[in-house]
Amino acid sequence: MPDLQNDRLLRALMREPVDRTPVWVMRQAGRYLPEYNQTRARAGSFVKLMKSPAMAAEVTLQPLARFDLDAAIVFSDILTVPDAMGLGLYFAEGEGPRFEHPLRDPQAIAALRIPDPATDLRYVMDAIAECRRGLAGKVPLIGFSGSPFTLACYMIEGGGSDDFARVKQLMYGDPASMHRLLDINARAVSQYLDAQIEAGAQAVMLFDTWGGMLSAERYREFSLRYLEQIVGSIRREAEGRRVPIIVFTKGGAIWLESIAAIGADAVGLDWTIDIGTARKRVGDRVALQGNLDPIVMLTDPATIENEVERILSSFGHGSGHVFNLGHGITRFTPPEHVGALVDAVHRSSLRFHATAGTK
Amino acid sequence: MPDLQNDRLLRALMREPVDRTPVWVMRQAGRYLPEYNQTRARAGSFVKLMKSPAMAAEVTLQPLARFDLDAAIVFSDILTVPDAMGLGLYFAEGEGPRFEHPLRDPQAIAALRIPDPATDLRYVMDAIAECRRGLAGKVPLIGFSGSPFTLACYMIEGGGSDDFARVKQLMYGDPASMHRLLDINARAVSQYLDAQIEAGAQAVMLFDTWGGMLSAERYREFSLRYLEQIVGSIRREAEGRRVPIIVFTKGGAIWLESIAAIGADAVGLDWTIDIGTARKRVGDRVALQGNLDPIVMLTDPATIENEVERILSSFGHGSGHVFNLGHGITRFTPPEHVGALVDAVHRSSLRFHATAGTK
Repeated sequence: MPDLQNDRLLRALMREPVDRTPVWVMRQAGRYLPEYNQTRARAGSFVKLMKSPAMAAEVTLQPLARFDLDAAIVFSDILTVPDAMGLGLYFAEGEGPRFEHPLRDPQAIAALRIPDPATDLRYVMDAIAECRRGLAGKVPLIGFSGSPFTLACYMIEGGGSDDFARVKQLMYGDPASMHRLLDINARAVSQYLDAQIEAGAQAVMLFDTWGGMLSAERYREFSLRYLEQIVGSIRREAEGRRVPIIVFTKGGAIWLESIAAIGADAVGLDWTIDIGTARKRVGDRVALQGNLDPIVMLTDPATIENEVERILSSFGHGSGHVFNLGHGITRFTPPEHVGALVDAVHRSSLRFHATAGTK
Repeated sequence: MPDLQNDRLLRALMREPVDRTPVWVMRQAGRYLPEYNQTRARAGSFVKLMKSPAMAAEVTLQPLARFDLDAAIVFSDILTVPDAMGLGLYFAEGEGPRFEHPLRDPQAIAALRIPDPATDLRYVMDAIAECRRGLAGKVPLIGFSGSPFTLACYMIEGGGSDDFARVKQLMYGDPASMHRLLDINARAVSQYLDAQIEAGAQAVMLFDTWGGMLSAERYREFSLRYLEQIVGSIRREAEGRRVPIIVFTKGGAIWLESIAAIGADAVGLDWTIDIGTARKRVGDRVALQGNLDPIVMLTDPATIENEVERILSSFGHGSGHVFNLGHGITRFTPPEHVGALVDAVHRSSLRFHATAGTK
């Protein structure tokens, strides 16, 4: 593997000194980019695009060609693991992800098998290897998965939901079955992330999109506990270097101290918490990633720069911050606004990473 | 007016001693009740039902006839004020509220006029008076409105939204117009709540359904500030008694201390925060209302009782807790589960309100 030319992301995730704050964007390879839409049209569907290593690598690299981003994230989906378990991932036009065969009873949970990443999820490993070749050491590559709880939400509901009534009814009414499902998911995700790291992922991220709709106690029991199981079991080093792990529970800022305590290197933040407040709450236990409101990206470069400045100032001096949005970028974002964001982060953050002797 | 026979709600909201924890349910007059659906069918639509004082009072009293609830809440909607401003409230079948004439430019905001509650919202005052006659002092009657920010969300978007992109773009891009709108809304809501209190509301509640999707800083500037303006300006006494005010920002638990500091008597909680943690955070500044996950109501009486016990134990001894759900009850709730809830709260809470000399 060629040497990594820009390791700001990895250093910031480890809270090691950097010259400027690294920045990447959740869903940076996505529908706001015309070239992405072209490749997706060529693929025929989101799932076909995701399962073609060549095209997945192509769209992974597209935003890097336009913007001075400090990381790539392999183009994939948070729900690849249940798809590999046989649930049949698909996307209805204009809607979120769905499963053809959702889990409808405890027997369906008991029948689940952990997929073999080397075969059942080979396309992800091939995409990662292809991305690494294409990146040629320019920036690090991030691998990822949905969290055990978030996978369970889609596996049980069969898609998104306003209130996740089925999931919660299982959780409240048959907690043993829910725990069985979450344990299978956690072991499957651990093996999956290990395989991604083996294939070339240089950092990994767990997306807990729906943990934030739980009560505090149930969040700890049904989501955080399984995040901790994964963090405690996966490989943390590869190619002679630490592989940082980021955990992100959308809506989880209220439980920040608990999330920061499970052993991950970094915690993702949505935009509802002031990042300076978050930094005080976690101290030096973890790095923080976030947390611009994605809707700011729809405004104008001056407003974007202003908001970048607010977040950087709120975090303050020193390393331990990876700039990102607080949620995925919306498809209506003008691409040039991403350029404005990246440049603003790099320019404005210089003064927060002054050399020794200055503050 | 006849004497109030059950003042547990008002006492708990003032953190005065009670014999047991009072309980009511957000949307307790709603679609989970067959008799409600019958009256609504007779009315022809939600809006017609709401605008008929006789039928609104009828459905307000329906859950009281079934369950030993400690409060009634006048059947109405959080969006009556913008409707009275001429925006044209309606409900598309199976969807949330919508406005026929959403605000699409700063001129539309500048043209808004504060409605006169005595005439433009007369139907609400008549419903309140009718409810008070029907209640005959059995339990207190709660009046309410949406918060200035939540009204603004619907006024600008014209309905619900996944990301409230229009609202946020106005807020980030033209904050002066947004503040103009919020100030009009705050003054209108203040006059509206004053009129409700004059008409017979014995407690009032502000529903800030969407404040939780703001960043911390913008929440203070665009939502909390206007809640504070209302709390500081409305009438706080009627019929020789304090009229408590409850503020509820769904998703706002992260900002609990700030919300508890605006001068309201009580703060509503959704289910994401442990109520014992919340009590420690607010100390004796406010009472707390909440916070059962509404999905628990879909399970079974034993699970409901178990969850009630957890919440009561977490809050602990003493007054200052009004039991409620953390959000409106879902239409799929079996009515008998509400009976199980109310009875469980009354029965299990007795030991937390022991007489002097015991703990």
